[in-house]
Amino acid sequence: MTDRREFHDLASPEAAHEAIASLDLGGGTETVPLREARGRVLAERIDAELDVPGFDRASMDGYAIRARDTFGADEADPARLELVGTVHAGSEPDVTVEEGTAAEISTGAVMPPGADAVVMVERTDRVERSSTERANGEAVSGTDEGAVLVRTSLAPGDHVMLAGADVAAGERTLGTGTELTPREIGLLSALGIDEVPVRAKPRVGIVSTGDELVRPGGDLDSAAGQIYDVNSYTTATAVEEAGGEAVLYPHAGDDYDEMERLLTEAAAECDLVLSSGSTSASAVDVIYRVIEERGELLLHGVAVKPGKPMLVGRLDGGDSPSAYVGLPGYPVSALTIFRAFVAPAIREAAGRPEPRTATVEGKMAVEERYSEGRRRLMPVGLVDDGTGDTLVYPVDKGSGATTSLVEADGIVEVPAETEYLAAGEAVSVQLFSPDVRVPSLYAVGEDDPALSRLLDDLDRPRYLSVGTREGLRRLRNGVPDAAVAAGDPEIAADHEELGGWTREWGLVVPDGNPADVTGVADLADRDLRLVNRGSNSGLRAALDDAVAALADERESSRRELTDAIDGYELTVKAHESPARKVAAGDADAGLGLRHTAEKLGLGFVSLGEQDVRVLANPERTEKAGVQDLRAAVANVESVLGELAGYSPQD
Amino acid sequence: MTDRREFHDLASPEAAHEAIASLDLGGGTETVPLREARGRVLAERIDAELDVPGFDRASMDGYAIRARDTFGADEADPARLELVGTVHAGSEPDVTVEEGTAAEISTGAVMPPGADAVVMVERTDRVERSSTERANGEAVSGTDEGAVLVRTSLAPGDHVMLAGADVAAGERTLGTGTELTPREIGLLSALGIDEVPVRAKPRVGIVSTGDELVRPGGDLDSAAGQIYDVNSYTTATAVEEAGGEAVLYPHAGDDYDEMERLLTEAAAECDLVLSSGSTSASAVDVIYRVIEERGELLLHGVAVKPGKPMLVGRLDGGDSPSAYVGLPGYPVSALTIFRAFVAPAIREAAGRPEPRTATVEGKMAVEERYSEGRRRLMPVGLVDDGTGDTLVYPVDKGSGATTSLVEADGIVEVPAETEYLAAGEAVSVQLFSPDVRVPSLYAVGEDDPALSRLLDDLDRPRYLSVGTREGLRRLRNGVPDAAVAAGDPEIAADHEELGGWTREWGLVVPDGNPADVTGVADLADRDLRLVNRGSNSGLRAALDDAVAALADERESSRRELTDAIDGYELTVKAHESPARKVAAGDADAGLGLRHTAEKLGLGFVSLGEQDVRVLANPERTEKAGVQDLRAAVANVESVLGELAGYSPQD
Repeated sequence: MTDRREFHDLASPEAAHEAIASLDLGGGTETVPLREARGRVLAERIDAELDVPGFDRASMDGYAIRARDTFGADEADPARLELVGTVHAGSEPDVTVEEGTAAEISTGAVMPPGADAVVMVERTDRVERSSTERANGEAVSGTDEGAVLVRTSLAPGDHVMLAGADVAAGERTLGTGTELTPREIGLLSALGIDEVPVRAKPRVGIVSTGDELVRPGGDLDSAAGQIYDVNSYTTATAVEEAGGEAVLYPHAGDDYDEMERLLTEAAAECDLVLSSGSTSASAVDVIYRVIEERGELLLHGVAVKPGKPMLVGRLDGGDSPSAYVGLPGYPVSALTIFRAFVAPAIREAAGRPEPRTATVEGKMAVEERYSEGRRRLMPVGLVDDGTGDTLVYPVDKGSGATTSLVEADGIVEVPAETEYLAAGEAVSVQLFSPDVRVPSLYAVGEDDPALSRLLDDLDRPRYLSVGTREGLRRLRNGVPDAAVAAGDPEIAADHEELGGWTREWGLVVPDGNPADVTGVADLADRDLRLVNRGSNSGLRAALDDAVAALADERESSRRELTDAIDGYELTVKAHESPARKVAAGDADAGLGLRHTAEKLGLGFVSLGEQDVRVLANPERTEKAGVQDLRAAVANVESVLGELAGYSPQD
Repeated sequence: MTDRREFHDLASPEAAHEAIASLDLGGGTETVPLREARGRVLAERIDAELDVPGFDRASMDGYAIRARDTFGADEADPARLELVGTVHAGSEPDVTVEEGTAAEISTGAVMPPGADAVVMVERTDRVERSSTERANGEAVSGTDEGAVLVRTSLAPGDHVMLAGADVAAGERTLGTGTELTPREIGLLSALGIDEVPVRAKPRVGIVSTGDELVRPGGDLDSAAGQIYDVNSYTTATAVEEAGGEAVLYPHAGDDYDEMERLLTEAAAECDLVLSSGSTSASAVDVIYRVIEERGELLLHGVAVKPGKPMLVGRLDGGDSPSAYVGLPGYPVSALTIFRAFVAPAIREAAGRPEPRTATVEGKMAVEERYSEGRRRLMPVGLVDDGTGDTLVYPVDKGSGATTSLVEADGIVEVPAETEYLAAGEAVSVQLFSPDVRVPSLYAVGEDDPALSRLLDDLDRPRYLSVGTREGLRRLRNGVPDAAVAAGDPEIAADHEELGGWTREWGLVVPDGNPADVTGVADLADRDLRLVNRGSNSGLRAALDDAVAALADERESSRRELTDAIDGYELTVKAHESPARKVAAGDADAGLGLRHTAEKLGLGFVSLGEQDVRVLANPERTEKAGVQDLRAAVANVESVLGELAGYSPQD
């Protein structure tokens, strides 16, 4: 084993923020086409270079006239003006309005020479030249266009928008730092600007380390311990969300030369290099050495949970050193450190303000105690209490599980000196993404395929398959909106039953039941390998009961029987997992559902039926998400038809 | 003039929403690479296809052992296990752990055959084989690796993460409708998924009409009445923000055949076609005819201000008809109708929820009365009152000005039956973009280049150059945070003075002053053409005073003098505008500043100095933006050096 580098002198979180702030994350100016400028931030003040409109324009449909010609005119005594032509929007006037004449004009058209006002069409009457007039050659100043009677008196400038009246050349129009939304794009369009100087996006290189990582989409050799790389895409997406440009580099193994080559290449091409820690200690040590030898390590380890393995430094590469931050390896921890330390620095370099939705205020749903004396970035989930408050509960206490990625909505920063957060205490949650929303429903409990189908019809529910026992425990704590219980558990939690269904359970065996398994007794008496479910599962409780019944029958002990069943303690996570082990030839029988056996083309030995019940938190029955769940459960028969062994509740 | 089509039967706003909802806006499913899936919405439920991890893995650095070999071991009486090799993360174990042996193992590595638990390295001691042992050939089961003393007793499964313990194959992981943020991208990465089925973006074609429009960046012929096209880019950006894909089509003139060709081409290629109304009535009529003849007009005109000219229909084009909505021509009106009617439909088709920041709650800053009996979408600006409330004030009462694009933050929907909104009344504001923010400072008043420079150092201020008089009027109403006054106006508003400076004003004349203008008397007495500023301007007030003084001197009336000055009533908008007219040869003298004359290389006839004072709303002096303004004004000398004719206030 490589010597592990221990971080004895942990930096304070403030020192870590300062160290990152001291780095140069790029963020210069670039010019982008206006059409692609949405969401970018102006790097320079924009003053108008031209007048808008660029000419005196009619602001009504009507007639361009000389105001003096209408002095004294009214309904009873209109002024008669001879028509000399028409001016359309978008064309140069080819008429001049002399004394006693008018030109028809459209809104937006250029005022013809001589005219200083527009009379709206509604205040006029058109007079065709009569045939008599034409025959007699009357109306000397007239033309074949006829004439118009103006029934109102106008002042110069009436219904005319002067050049520059909207925006005048030389005016300050948008300031540095303005975020470009559709309306600013509109103003810049009006100025004829088609390229804008904006803050450049900092380029952020992402290097993930570990011989075992495979990029999503690649082939995985599980026997060789390979896993898919979670942090590269997660971090790249988070970088983009913060306003940076993400550049992914190939995986580096734990080899010094390869790591050095990759990190210096990334440093040469990027403003900031992020590595996400390998779970392997040796890889961390290699990175540490590269930074020390090819750059400068500003700090290693931060006195914040989970920031202990965080590195901050500079890396030589191109003309100027690149900034470097090493993130932890666990996905939630990596995202936590990114959110707390790196995202603000990227936004700052990109000139972008923190999104208004980046933080939400909530109340602790449960009390939480701390003993470590270290600042903690506590991953939390959110649940709407139905009366306008957002409740906050801790998740993923360092498990490193990938699934907690979608349970954790953000982080609460708990100061080192805080020993206790009371239930109901106000906390501020930094969301993992400004797009994260409080789920419409937060439910927990048994993993069940009918439930899964019901959830499909709800809008953004959060359901955690933690099993019946754990689900009921959480419901008792009052945090979730609902719990789903299978079997006949003791229910200590206050609840309102929303309904349920019945499912057939038993042993999933290979197709055709080649070992001729008939029931629990066979498992105990014969050389058969079982795959079981964990003790939180309602299926497991049913099997435990069946074993207990057999023990009674045999006047034996339950323990004696379970010891005799090979694999009774071999538990797997989800309702399909035992059946999949059977399908893979890894076991002779798996605890499961008739539906799963049929779905996977396996045999099934029925051991009974059990109820699945949906129990609402009585405090939340009016909440919209719970009402939707109630409606979905009431309509459960619509999905039971496609599920073998399922039936409506009695 | 073309016959104008009048819309007598206006549809209700509800009918307009229904008509748009009845259209098919596309929004199917497409597959995108995971790396580009940020912000997209899952079109299908994603169940796990594999176990995560895919193998039983060590969750600690230490030694893989058989738990039974450690039973009873403790600090005092360790179990000695012979080392048989090492298992690294990312490689297949090449050792088997037999009874009495152990294999060194790294976190994340595959459990070697035979082992069922991991002892963490901290609970062990390494024992090298002594040279004596090696010489004697002792320790039959050992190898050259040496041995390890295990100082604790372990149970099977300790520090082992079983295959599927994180995510089990077959589990429901993400539901339909889930918006993909970094954490979801992380979970999908863990499942090895590199392509995801997401809701397709509706394709939205944008056709803008009007012979007079020129796309930004193009050459503008102002003499021919051309203007830059504002609505195309604005609408395209707003479409993208709502989750659609915008396709811009070339401008259509008012010609029926061309319009028909463009609209049917857009209909063939897009799910929705938007046209933004020309200011020209004839173009609207042409579109109307195309929709009637090549599709179906569902409604024309909506009983909402400014929705009167709105059209909704279908357009034949490709295999299935495309949806069509015609927007008004004024930019703020177009954005208003888009925000209220079109954006929700695009989001619905794209499967995206309304952003949480799309709406803000505020209070009316002033009272507002209505007399029309028609629902109104009132464009409003927002100002933070410094105590946590957002004040809402109406802007752009139908002026059609481009500049109101950046004054209006959103719209308030006022029901037809509402005749009166009281100051302080709670209103809900639909923002024009979820990225629109309440400005940090809202100030109004005189247009001044020193002020403009001070504003550059503030964070997102809003400054409206409405002139001194209008600025003071607004300050008296209590809406803005501050007003900037030039000259010596009567100040009726309560205020706290933040400071100011002095500027030299006079007549800007051509370079070298070829007409030898010496002052106001020359303007009245000689054949000189002036360009003036509007009566809200503090510069204009100073000129008015100079004229009045001359009138006194001559025992004449002010009116007599101003009538004698050619162009006294020819007013332009911004402080540089008169000077620019002089530079363009359009006038002999322009009211302006010495700074402007020097900047534009023109001559200058000084008429005096005037104070520019920054006056804060006394209710807002504690507001951060006002404090920043105060600090900037206190530091004004830093910008005065670059401004000719400027000096610190006495």
